[in-house]
Amino acid sequence: MRKLPKKRDFPVSQVRRYLEPGPIVLVSSHHEGATNIMTLGWHTILEFSPSLVGLMISSGNHSHEMIRASGECVINLPTTAMTDTVVGIGNTTGAQVDKFSRFDLTAQEANEVDAPMIGECHASFECRLHDAAMVEKYNFFIFEVVKAHVASSPKHPETLHYTGDGAFMVAGKVISRRSLFRPEMLG
Amino acid sequence: MRKLPKKRDFPVSQVRRYLEPGPIVLVSSHHEGATNIMTLGWHTILEFSPSLVGLMISSGNHSHEMIRASGECVINLPTTAMTDTVVGIGNTTGAQVDKFSRFDLTAQEANEVDAPMIGECHASFECRLHDAAMVEKYNFFIFEVVKAHVASSPKHPETLHYTGDGAFMVAGKVISRRSLFRPEMLG
Repeated sequence: MRKLPKKRDFPVSQVRRYLEPGPIVLVSSHHEGATNIMTLGWHTILEFSPSLVGLMISSGNHSHEMIRASGECVINLPTTAMTDTVVGIGNTTGAQVDKFSRFDLTAQEANEVDAPMIGECHASFECRLHDAAMVEKYNFFIFEVVKAHVASSPKHPETLHYTGDGAFMVAGKVISRRSLFRPEMLG
Repeated sequence: MRKLPKKRDFPVSQVRRYLEPGPIVLVSSHHEGATNIMTLGWHTILEFSPSLVGLMISSGNHSHEMIRASGECVINLPTTAMTDTVVGIGNTTGAQVDKFSRFDLTAQEANEVDAPMIGECHASFECRLHDAAMVEKYNFFIFEVVKAHVASSPKHPETLHYTGDGAFMVAGKVISRRSLFRPEMLG
C-alpha cells in the first residue's frame, strides 16, 4: 500500500504559514460526478479570520466552470518530490484527461466539501466560495478555508515557486528573525 | 559612494517572474510631501497585459491611506541581503518614523509615479491604482504595473518568503522543467 503523508487538523486562521510564501498549489474540484486538478500560482491570503484566500482561476481552465458552479475547491500543497506531477498537471486539460488517474494520485474524501483532497500533498485546505464579485471581471475568486489538514512533519517542506518559462524557484531553508519582532507582530 | 544594483527597463508583462514566486516585498509610497515604506506578503499577479497585481494592504498600516489617496505605489523586491532591513521596516510605523532615513535607504525618482523607488532593492515596479472596488471590503487594491526596473544579474536572486511568526523561507535555487512544457504554456 502506498504511503501517504499523515495529515492532522490545522487551525484555518494559520494557513498563511503555507500559502503566504507563494508556492505553486494544486487546486482540486468536483462537479456533477467529475473531478479535476489544476496548477495555480496566482493566489494570495486576504484575511486571518475568517480565513480568506484569493485565487485567480483563468476562465481558460476546465476547472474554472466546475469551481464556479460548485462553489468549492481544495487547495493542495505539493512539495518538490512532486515536481514532475505538478508540471504534468499544468500541461494537460481536464477536458480530455482524468488527472487523478493519469497522474496516479489518491483522491481522499474531504470533510466539508465534495471536492477531493490529494493524498500525496503535504497539506490540503478545504475551501468554500465566499465572494464571487470579482469573478466576472478578473476571474478572481475569494474563498474561505473551512477546514485545514497538514502533515505534521516537516514543518516547512521544500516547495515550488513558479517564475514562468518552465522554471521554479525552490524554497526550503528557513531563517528566523523572531527576536527582532514586536510581540504583537508575531503569531 | 554606495554601490546600488544597476537596474534596466524590464517588460511589464513579465513581472510575474519576480512576483509569482511570492516573495515579501517593500511597498513605497508618497503623499503630500511624505514618503513611506511597508513590508507586504499578501499579493498576487492577476493579469499579464495589462500587467495587473493585487495587493492586500491592511487599513492598520500608515501606508494604506497614503496609497489610497495618491493612487500610486512602487513594489520593490528585496533580497536576503536585506533581511534585517525588511524586518525593521515591518516592525516600525511610518506614523512615527521616516523609513528611508531610519533604515538608510536610497530614494530614487521613479518615471511614472511620484512614489520613490528603493535603490537597494533588486527590482522596482511602478504601480498606478487600476481598480479600487475591493478596497472598502477587503483592503484589496488592484494596481497596474506601468513601468518595471530590474537588476540585470543575478537572474533569480535569493528572496524572502514570509511564513508568519518571525520566520522566512528562502528561495534561490532554480530548477527548470522547460522541456516538459507544451510550447503555448511557456513565455
